[in-house]
This record gives sequence, structure tokens and C-alpha cells, in this order.
Amino acid sequence: MTATLFHNACAATLDPAREGVWGVVEPAAILSENGRITWIGPESDLPSQRASGAERIDLGGRWVTPALIDCHTHLVFAGDRSGEFEQRLSGVSYEEIARAGGGIRATMTATRAASLEALTDAAEARIRQLMRGGVASVEIKSGYGLDMDTERAMLMAATEAARRAGVRVRRTFLGLHALPPDYQGRRADYVRWMAGDVLPALHAEGLVDAVDAFCETIGFTPAETELMFEAAARLGLPVCLHAEQLSDQGGAALAARYGALSADHLEYLSEAGAQAMAQAGTTAVLLPGAFYALKETKRPPVDLLRALNVPMAVATDLNPGSSPLVSPVLAMNMACILFGLTPAEAFAGMTRDAAKAMGVAGEAGMLRAGLAADLAVWDVSGPAEIVYWIGHPGPERLFIAGQEASL
Amino acid sequence: MTATLFHNACAATLDPAREGVWGVVEPAAILSENGRITWIGPESDLPSQRASGAERIDLGGRWVTPALIDCHTHLVFAGDRSGEFEQRLSGVSYEEIARAGGGIRATMTATRAASLEALTDAAEARIRQLMRGGVASVEIKSGYGLDMDTERAMLMAATEAARRAGVRVRRTFLGLHALPPDYQGRRADYVRWMAGDVLPALHAEGLVDAVDAFCETIGFTPAETELMFEAAARLGLPVCLHAEQLSDQGGAALAARYGALSADHLEYLSEAGAQAMAQAGTTAVLLPGAFYALKETKRPPVDLLRALNVPMAVATDLNPGSSPLVSPVLAMNMACILFGLTPAEAFAGMTRDAAKAMGVAGEAGMLRAGLAADLAVWDVSGPAEIVYWIGHPGPERLFIAGQEASL
Ligand SMILES: [Zn+2]
Ligand SMILES: [Zn+2]
Repeated sequence: MTATLFHNACAATLDPAREGVWGVVEPAAILSENGRITWIGPESDLPSQRASGAERIDLGGRWVTPALIDCHTHLVFAGDRSGEFEQRLSGVSYEEIARAGGGIRATMTATRAASLEALTDAAEARIRQLMRGGVASVEIKSGYGLDMDTERAMLMAATEAARRAGVRVRRTFLGLHALPPDYQGRRADYVRWMAGDVLPALHAEGLVDAVDAFCETIGFTPAETELMFEAAARLGLPVCLHAEQLSDQGGAALAARYGALSADHLEYLSEAGAQAMAQAGTTAVLLPGAFYALKETKRPPVDLLRALNVPMAVATDLNPGSSPLVSPVLAMNMACILFGLTPAEAFAGMTRDAAKAMGVAGEAGMLRAGLAADLAVWDVSGPAEIVYWIGHPGPERLFIAGQEASL
Repeated sequence: MTATLFHNACAATLDPAREGVWGVVEPAAILSENGRITWIGPESDLPSQRASGAERIDLGGRWVTPALIDCHTHLVFAGDRSGEFEQRLSGVSYEEIARAGGGIRATMTATRAASLEALTDAAEARIRQLMRGGVASVEIKSGYGLDMDTERAMLMAATEAARRAGVRVRRTFLGLHALPPDYQGRRADYVRWMAGDVLPALHAEGLVDAVDAFCETIGFTPAETELMFEAAARLGLPVCLHAEQLSDQGGAALAARYGALSADHLEYLSEAGAQAMAQAGTTAVLLPGAFYALKETKRPPVDLLRALNVPMAVATDLNPGSSPLVSPVLAMNMACILFGLTPAEAFAGMTRDAAKAMGVAGEAGMLRAGLAADLAVWDVSGPAEIVYWIGHPGPERLFIAGQEASL
């Protein structure tokens, strides 16, 4: 048995069973045994025999929090889109870029052309960048392959990159991300193939943990989304949904009807949609990086979500087009500045509530006995300071399942 | 003599004498002798005897750019304001916070109470954070002391922190930052004392390189600003000005009249103000971090500045209240996303044009023979990629005057 006692710390547990919005325990000691927290409290309360054989790690009075959880990313891809970024800011229109094969099609083309090893290496580098920002658990979507082989390669790259980096991962099948050029004019065929053949095949290979779709005028209709969700249900897979980002398609209510873990983006969420989410226990995933990069002006209805007690997660949406955001700490700051979350709400959004969105609330997301010993250690005067700085680099130390990660 | 040949690189020189907006030299070798660039070009063009005794550093095909210049910061201060940040986002009004001694007064109180050593340590840590983002030259303002002793301590801390970190520094006296509580109702006395006594005394101690003021309805009037600028002129010190951030006070034109190096913020800049700047050769310093953190909606008139060929610098404005932005790379991204600069304009804004704002255009800001060998080395596909990522951590390596800095 491996046992570690983290002591001489101030803990922001994010545990609602404790006091205040941060659930502070100060001073705090945390006992990790076999990768799980088995005790947390003031060290003076710790029965002395409990930690007798444990390695002791003195945190020097630093603040310790749950490690971060990035519950919505598209971090497996080849080719950045900085050229397009430069063109757009130099006055080239979206239409011209799209006509020249840019946009999501450029990423699809580059990803289809990349080797599995190249995809894996690039994904691992991005995961390590998120880890430097404090992340121990990450959700990764497919959806730039849009064919059997490349969707498979993306999920294999996600699996292997996460294994190498040593983070928890949830792999989400996003075959309904965009209609690929080879299926232009054959939408129904594409949806049927993705839901009826590709998803079951990749699931049978053990590559899929959840299913997502992009429900939008420029993506897929609610009816097409339902075909995919029904396929997920047949396989016993949980679902989530890109919903109400650019318009109100009723996606949130549809997701709720299928018991979705989360509905994501939600700038155009209606009151009925929010109520459906509240009743179904669906978490709202807010993605301020895309809002920022796309220069959106309509914010998700945070007051409504608060009033209905819908949990609000926050994620980077790390992707090469609409949100090349590689800093989870900045995602929290943006959730405050752009969406009006409090620092504690934003932090819960990348810990406790992100765990709900990822379906791992019983595993991680708080400093509480029974959960994983995933800890981030910060050189700050208090947890709000982590969210306050704009461009804060991340924690000093990160522990995943009780083991220190090299950052 | 120390000589180093950096070779096997792609260089974005930012030198307008070269081709394209980035001034690319590819492949490139850069010869540094005694801290200065003495030759740059394709390695095959380098006369073989020129670099015969030089240490060779292989940059492995990486992109190299001028190191960044952060030409507007307030990075000497005690006490973060994360508590206030949290209160504001939890619904406490600015007025309540101010009545409770918050805002700039809180920073003044904490800074007055801090030891010189504590101020220096905190400033050094912040400079090192900027260096991790690629910065080799930094401007640092006083203005949280608002009395003789603390303004002196701030400038001493800036001097010593920059020396320890090994960066170039310009120290700017900002006695007219806010009216301190001890001078409430005695504005004229305060301005006279700052301009007539404090500035000359600190200048005589060798602590002042330039003079700034906060010209705003909530700061100081144009007439008060002029008293300070006249004092600066008597001492032969260059000036710059916080101008037109929240309203049009005619500050930019006033700054231009005094031959200011820069006018900074400029959200409310008028066409007449911009024309005055163009004629005087005054650089516009854009501060997207403050725009972002204060949720401003009126952007500086970038098209107008472009049309008049006013150089546009970009800076972090690093300060504990309105811009706790600690990432220069993010400042460039924000200049693109929030203000519409092109990536090359934003990068020039933290290199070539920031050097103009800091009055060091003959020293740094481009990769060109005769300038300092201040180089940043980046693992990117091209220079636009540096600006494209949101929350990019910074360069792999940084060289200041030809010497590698430890990041
Ligand atoms: Zn997404
Ligand atoms: Zn300022």
C-alpha cells in the first residue's frame, strides 16, 4: 500500500458539505492511500496511528485544491489554423477561407493525412500543456476524421496520449461534428452510417466512453442528433451535446430527454431548455474561450442556470478553430470576466461540476475522502487569486492519484 | 569578446527593411558579439572567418524573434486585489468596495506598509513571469506610494528587481496616479509637491527615466498634467501619458505637444488627438488587458491610427486592479481578438513599436545588426502561431544580450 500524508496546507476542498463557497479547511492535512483520499482535516485531528507509515509531504503553507478537470476538448488534431487566423485578421472573409478549403475542413484534411503517431504526439503535448495548468482529468472528442479510420485513429490517439501523460480521460465520439465533403448531398446516409456502423464498431473496439453531436443550423438537426443518441442508448453510452451555441435549436431539452450528462455552450439557451436540464440533472458546460475567440456578444443565461440550480461546468473547448485556448486557468478567469461567474463558481466549474459533466463525480472533483487524490498546489494568498490573474501559469505542483506529475 | 552564432533557425526579424510584415529570414543565422547582433542572414552568406571563434548554438529549425518588450506595467506593488475581484463578482458594488478602503487605495496602503525587500521580491517574481512569456525589456511605473518615501521605494524595487532578473528596465515616475487620502481637498498642493519636490529629488537620486500621469476625470486634469510635464522638461526627462481611457480629455494632443514617447490606452482618442500624435511621432500604446478586465466596449480607433501611420505598441498594463494580466503573449492575442490588430501588428507592438514607446528603438525591438541580441526561440510552425493560441505559455528559450536567461 502506498500512503502519503500531505500536510501544512490550506485546502479549498470545493466540498459543499463544508463551509463557505470554497469549502476551506485550514490548516489541512490530506491522507492519500492507494491513490485515494482516505482522510482530510486539520492535522491535529488525525489519529496518530492513521498515518504512521505514510510518506509525509510538507506543502509549506500553500493552498491545495482538487486538480482541474477539463470536461470539453477537441485536442486531437493535426495542423494548427494560425494561417487562417492571420488571414481573417488581415481582412480575408470566412467565405473566402472556406472556399479555399479552410475552416474545419482544413483540420479534417490534415488529421486524415496524419499518422497515428503524429496525432498521439501532438495530443500528448497538448495534454501536458493542460497539466501545467493543473489538469488531471480531460475529456477528448473525436470529430475531425468524419470517416471510420480517422475517427478510430483520433480515439486511439486520445487513449494513448492520456496514458502516456498519466491523466484520466473520457473519450467521446463526435462523428456528427460536420458533414464531410465526401457525403455532401447525402446527409441521411452519413448520419445513418455514423450512428449505425461507425459508433458501434469503435465502441466494440473499446474506444468510446460517451457520445456527442453538434446540434446547430451549420451542424446537425435535432432529428439527426436523436438518431445518434438512440444508437448511444442501444450501446449503454452516456451522451452530451453541443447545444444552443449560435441559435436555439431546442438541443438542451433534447439532451435532457436523453438524460445527457451535459449540454455545452448554451449561449442561446431558453428558459424551457434550462428547466429541462434542471429536471434531468444535466450539467451546463460553459465555454468562454469560443465566446471570446468568435467575438460573441450573447452570453449564456448564467442567472437562470443559477436560479434553477443547474450545475455549471467550465472547459477550454481546446480546438484549432473556434477556441485555441490552452490554459484552463484562463478559462476560469474568462468565465468570471466574460460570463459573470464568481471565482468559486468558476473553480467549481473546473472541478466539482466538471466531474458531473464528465460522469466522474464519484471519482474526482473535490477534496473529500473516497475520491481520487488529485491535488493541485498553488502559490497564492487564497483560491480566488488563482482565478483573478489573467494568464496565470498554473499550479506549482500537481498530484494525480497521489503521485506527483512532472510539469 | 563573447561571440555566439545562433544558426539553423527561421527568423521573424520584425525589420521593416526586410520583406513582408514579419521580415522573415529563412534559413537564418544570427551573430551576437558582446551582446549585440553584428550580422544576420542566411548562414551560407556568412563570411566563414566572421564567426570562426564564436560559440555555435543550433536552434534546430525553430523560429526566432526579437525578445518581447513590455512597455507599460505597474508591477511593483504589495497585496493582490483578488478579494476585491471576488467581492465584485459576488455583487458588491465599486462604491461599497471604495468606501471600505478598496481599489487603488488598498494597493497604496499595502505598498506603503511593505518593506523594500518585500516589494523587490514581489517585483522580481512578476518580472520573471513576464520573462517566461518572452520579455527582455520592461517599463515599470511608480504611483502606488503617492508619498516621497514609497515612490522612492517603488523605483528602488524596480531597479533592483530588474537587475536581479537581468532585464532592461525603464523606470517611470507616476506620482500623478491618484490623489492620496492625506491630500484630499488639497489637489493643487499635491500636484505642486509631486512636480516640484518629489520628482526632482528622486531624479537626483538616479531613480527616474521618464515621467507619466493619469489624465482622466477620476485622475488629474490636463492642466495638472502639464505642471508635471513642465517639471519633467526642466529635468530633461521624456514623458508619456495615460490618456483617453475612459473619456476624451485631450490628453493625447497634450502629450504630443510635449513630444511624448507614448500616449497609452486611447479608447476615446479623437481624430485630432491621433493627428497630433502622428505629427509628434508619439506611439500609441494599446492595453487590451484593462479593456478586457474592465469589460469596456469602446475600442481604441485602430483604423485611424493605421491610416495616420501612428506606431501601435501593445503592453500588459500589469497591475493589481484594472489589469492583472501577467502574460505578454496573451496581451498580443487580446490585441488581435479584442482590438482587431493583425498578428504581425500585435507582435510588432510588443517588439519594434514597444521599443519606440520605451525610447529604446536604437537598442532593441528587431533582429537587426546593431541592436541588442535579445532573442526569443519558439516551438511553432510560424510567428503567427505565437499570437494565435489563447494562453500560450511563451518561448522555449530566451536570450538577453546574447546570454541565455533561465526561465
Ligand atoms: Zn466543442
Ligand atoms: Zn497603466
